[in-house]
Amino acid sequence: MNQTIETILDHRSIRSFTDQPLTKEEIRLLVESAQGASTSSYIQAYSIIGVTEQSKKRKLAALAGDQPYVEKNGHLFVFCIDLFRHHKIAREKGEDIQASLEGTEIFMVGLIDAALAAQNMAVAAESMGLGICYIGGIRNNLEKVCELLETPEYVLPLFGLVVGHPANRSAKKPRLPLEHVYHENTYSLDQEDFHKALTDYDKTISSYYENRTNGKRTDQWTEQITRHLKQSQRTYLNQFVKEKGFNKS
Amino acid sequence: MNQTIETILDHRSIRSFTDQPLTKEEIRLLVESAQGASTSSYIQAYSIIGVTEQSKKRKLAALAGDQPYVEKNGHLFVFCIDLFRHHKIAREKGEDIQASLEGTEIFMVGLIDAALAAQNMAVAAESMGLGICYIGGIRNNLEKVCELLETPEYVLPLFGLVVGHPANRSAKKPRLPLEHVYHENTYSLDQEDFHKALTDYDKTISSYYENRTNGKRTDQWTEQITRHLKQSQRTYLNQFVKEKGFNKS
Repeated sequence: MNQTIETILDHRSIRSFTDQPLTKEEIRLLVESAQGASTSSYIQAYSIIGVTEQSKKRKLAALAGDQPYVEKNGHLFVFCIDLFRHHKIAREKGEDIQASLEGTEIFMVGLIDAALAAQNMAVAAESMGLGICYIGGIRNNLEKVCELLETPEYVLPLFGLVVGHPANRSAKKPRLPLEHVYHENTYSLDQEDFHKALTDYDKTISSYYENRTNGKRTDQWTEQITRHLKQSQRTYLNQFVKEKGFNKS
Repeated sequence: MNQTIETILDHRSIRSFTDQPLTKEEIRLLVESAQGASTSSYIQAYSIIGVTEQSKKRKLAALAGDQPYVEKNGHLFVFCIDLFRHHKIAREKGEDIQASLEGTEIFMVGLIDAALAAQNMAVAAESMGLGICYIGGIRNNLEKVCELLETPEYVLPLFGLVVGHPANRSAKKPRLPLEHVYHENTYSLDQEDFHKALTDYDKTISSYYENRTNGKRTDQWTEQITRHLKQSQRTYLNQFVKEKGFNKS
């Protein structure tokens, strides 16, 4: 196993950082790493906004559900789907690309492009000994996030990525059994395998939480995700995404 | 610069592979690498289908626009957004999570989860000296792809990832100027910077194609993406995604 794969397999989210900011060179290298990822039909449908102003970071931390590590970290990146430049370029050439920009396909492309770029950045950061954590919480209130970052039409922030020097190293969280996630040739619907794998996994996760919390928490995965998905999931997004120009048709 | 970042910055899509299949151990390591990626709220909303049957690969290659490397490669992975298991678990627990599954938020989460996992796999593969190429072309006809892979409700194939031993090494494709993609604190709308950066980039891309094609092609980036986005972009997806249970509200 090489160093890169060791880094990848050793990933854990870090939620506590020292005050040491990333250097300009580190930030540049991380953004270049992000840009190195594949991009659908070369359209490069994303932008990254680095947030350094402390007051903005504090506001974003509050919006994302009072997560202190959104404020205190080495650097906060916000990944956005971005078709603003494509829109502007086409308009200046007198061409109409409106139908494409509003379609489900481009929404999917932009989300995938942004996520591929972000994961390159995450792996690059971890290979440098830095810690990372994705911040889906910014989707709690994208209207405020857009105002704060002054994003134009056809730009939609998707998630944050905090990077920094770890103050605390968390434990690695066990993933679903490989056989549950990886199928060959057809999607396997074997009921017995399905339940066996989940029962084992629930035990693993229960012990994981028990060890980590000195017995205070013993959630199973199936309970946890059912509880999570029973809650309302940012239902304003359906409308808001459309207001920004995406996912309309 | 460490080895991992060198690998990331040296990425290029490979579209020609030898016949040598990946070993079972390589496939396992790649899937484990994919699983190592961050996942939103631990929901792990994706599955990966490896395709080894030659007749299926041939059909997928045809569906994806007759791309020979979809058929001839070391291994073909298809990444899917997958909430089928969550749906099944909740139903067995007598809980209703329908509203969440149908929402825009979960559609975004699943796309991001799948893409983070895929990019981990891509980087891991390249670190092993293998080549990769994403196959967005499977979205040309997802109905047929779903039939072929026998995916249930709440599973939607998103893209393929071919991995293999490179037969030909392509050139690295230049990305947008970093300053165009990376902003600080607010999204920069400076008109002069915008045009200057794009004019320079167009020249870079034009030379890139000229060199690669012995002068036959001299496209600029802005022309290329405008031409691309003027075309209709898989407009059936809006409806089809909903039929699979996603992005409805």
